[in-house]
Amino acid sequence: MEELEQLKAQLQKFADDRDWDQFHSPKNLSMALSVEASELVECFQWLTEEQSQNLSPEQLSAVKDEMADVQIYLLRLATKLNVNMLEAVNQKIEKNALKYPVDKVKGSSKKYNQYGSNDEADS
Amino acid sequence: MEELEQLKAQLQKFADDRDWDQFHSPKNLSMALSVEASELVECFQWLTEEQSQNLSPEQLSAVKDEMADVQIYLLRLATKLNVNMLEAVNQKIEKNALKYPVDKVKGSSKKYNQYGSNDEADS
Amino acid sequence: MEELEQLKAQLQKFADDRDWDQFHSPKNLSMALSVEASELVECFQWLTEEQSQNLSPEQLSAVKDEMADVQIYLLRLATKLNVNMLEAVNQKIEKNALKYPVDKVKGSSKKYNQYGSNDEADS
Amino acid sequence: MEELEQLKAQLQKFADDRDWDQFHSPKNLSMALSVEASELVECFQWLTEEQSQNLSPEQLSAVKDEMADVQIYLLRLATKLNVNMLEAVNQKIEKNALKYPVDKVKGSSKKYNQYGSNDEADS
Repeated sequence: MEELEQLKAQLQKFADDRDWDQFHSPKNLSMALSVEASELVECFQWLTEEQSQNLSPEQLSAVKDEMADVQIYLLRLATKLNVNMLEAVNQKIEKNALKYPVDKVKGSSKKYNQYGSNDEADS
Repeated sequence: MEELEQLKAQLQKFADDRDWDQFHSPKNLSMALSVEASELVECFQWLTEEQSQNLSPEQLSAVKDEMADVQIYLLRLATKLNVNMLEAVNQKIEKNALKYPVDKVKGSSKKYNQYGSNDEADS
Repeated sequence: MEELEQLKAQLQKFADDRDWDQFHSPKNLSMALSVEASELVECFQWLTEEQSQNLSPEQLSAVKDEMADVQIYLLRLATKLNVNMLEAVNQKIEKNALKYPVDKVKGSSKKYNQYGSNDEADS
Repeated sequence: MEELEQLKAQLQKFADDRDWDQFHSPKNLSMALSVEASELVECFQWLTEEQSQNLSPEQLSAVKDEMADVQIYLLRLATKLNVNMLEAVNQKIEKNALKYPVDKVKGSSKKYNQYGSNDEADS
């Protein structure tokens, strides 16, 4: 994931150039990330699920920008906390595979702790 | 960003194996993404900014998992909407560079539309 | 709205008894409120709109708890910022009536700044 | 809480006049509520906790508007799901009193399930 590491460096320079590092505590970055996630939700809130699958070019362009903002703040946070996102995602996929075994969850959207397994506390 | 494209394929298989594609409309995925973003916020909500910069190994591990969940839903959404995240991020960085020129914003956290520029509306 | 003012006092006592006031800065309370709002979203994220209109008693009970949590943090924030919620809501309804005149918006979910009006900046 | 019930009626009329009821499924309203909660977070994201306790009149006015928006969507949802908010809040306060007994939690911001109690799972 050289590209992500490269993006992290690029975004660090962007922040440095603007003296923004002082605002970028992990706490503040988590807030900014959730705000961008909600701006993404806002694009979809009055659409039906079907409409959300058939966005106009203008709608898609707005959605793309909000997705990029989420990615940007996620990478800023990863920089601040020294997290390698590729590694983190791969570890989480492994955990999820254990939490949601195919034979138990197929076709169901229930949360894993609704299957009566003995898993540890939720996330 | 071959790694991200590879992750997208891996996550698609994960969803296919569980017959979860039916739940993964862009609308629903945007909701799930924002829920994960809030679980990240929850890790920080009662911490000071300074504490958020000095997480214990347990706290960091929990934060990493939530960051991975955000990344996972973002990639699921990217799959559903045929968005290339690397391209989207690069385009957004270019836009941001225009919105936040170094000489105007250095050391300030104001939103770009608070600088009196002539930029179009934003959200 | 004597009841809301009474609730505010009751919640202040609850926090005082637990020495929680130290954590309840407006910044932190806004985070907690948004986390609860997302727990509400989580109840609905994999439901269709129709299913969300026909909750089981268990689902409704969970939703009610999350709604109460949102209300509680909103009142905590109102206490900290000396905001009278009834007054704030009434003022906002008046603003909204100007932003969304019936003859312009009937049957449409567009945001007011998509109607080509000359309104001031958005919120 | 006659005032809240009166507000609910007022907001129902506002929606009826604009033919907005069609968009106001519980699912969609939960999304809109969380978007407003994030607009509230946005007001605070780059402020220190101390700054968040000393808002300028302009900042406070913006915050008030967002708080009102959260309250409005919460009441809309309460209307759609036939929830009496005063009752819901009082029930939740009773639950919280059991989950967070004064002698166990005083001065701590830990989540109740971090105290080693026997409570059932929570989110």
